Amino acid sequence: MKVEYINPFIESVYDLFSTMLGCEAKRGNIGLAKPGGALREITALIGLSGRAKGTVAISFPEATALAMVGRLLGTEMETIDETISDALGEMVNIVAGGAKAKIHNDNGEAPIELSLPNVIQGGEYSVDYPSHTTWLDVPFSSELGSFNLRVTFRMDKKGE
Amino acid sequence: MKVEYINPFIESVYDLFSTMLGCEAKRGNIGLAKPGGALREITALIGLSGRAKGTVAISFPEATALAMVGRLLGTEMETIDETISDALGEMVNIVAGGAKAKIHNDNGEAPIELSLPNVIQGGEYSVDYPSHTTWLDVPFSSELGSFNLRVTFRMDKKGE
Repeated sequence: MKVEYINPFIESVYDLFSTMLGCEAKRGNIGLAKPGGALREITALIGLSGRAKGTVAISFPEATALAMVGRLLGTEMETIDETISDALGEMVNIVAGGAKAKIHNDNGEAPIELSLPNVIQGGEYSVDYPSHTTWLDVPFSSELGSFNLRVTFRMDKKGE
Repeated sequence: MKVEYINPFIESVYDLFSTMLGCEAKRGNIGLAKPGGALREITALIGLSGRAKGTVAISFPEATALAMVGRLLGTEMETIDETISDALGEMVNIVAGGAKAKIHNDNGEAPIELSLPNVIQGGEYSVDYPSHTTWLDVPFSSELGSFNLRVTFRMDKKGE
């Protein structure tokens, strides 16, 4: 996976914050996500398929999840519940959908399709991936808290 | 999601067992997966997109995961490691790919694209889904242990 492929996803996170959350997200350095490892976070993920196959994941510490969804809904959120899961799933859907549109614009074709989001939470878990793929990890900070964007995909030469 | 949509996925599990694992899988009653809840299992999942958007997940107790991968590789597996994750990811890829091919044959078109598999493991976690969707749950038993197939998707009327 080429590093520049992650740029539309980063831009899409910026757009989410500026248009829906009314504040700014700043990214840190792009790195490689370590395999395994306990996350102690809520992870919203969505599959990419079509010409690019992979996964987009955003991992939120609980405090960030509550603050972001609270801002989105204009109410104070205190507990992680179905409303939070739904909203975080929708956010990763928006980020992936925005990136899909940007990639479409660049290439004159729409190579990426999205699945439905899933939201994983628990005291301790890890999300592994096939060992021949790589997750790029981008840490973000904002006034609503920190979170990490993780993207892995490979382009399909056959265009299917 | 119509219950009959799950049949190609069930047939694909049967095929996986008969062709790659040399034994038979038997299914129990199809039900609705409960939201949330600790799984204490290894879950391999893959996104569906295109005309049908959703997720296919197979949840394996650790003992079943070790027995199935050991049978597949012809060696005794004792610990959950990257080899196990890769093999379980490949199994859910095969099950979803087989179902995709069956649905293709039925309708004369290929409405489903697959993302890459992810494998989730941990002491306690849950996989939630948007609250307007439903997971169908199919318990299976085999001489290699029990496991659950969970499928959720919705057909996209727009064909994209």
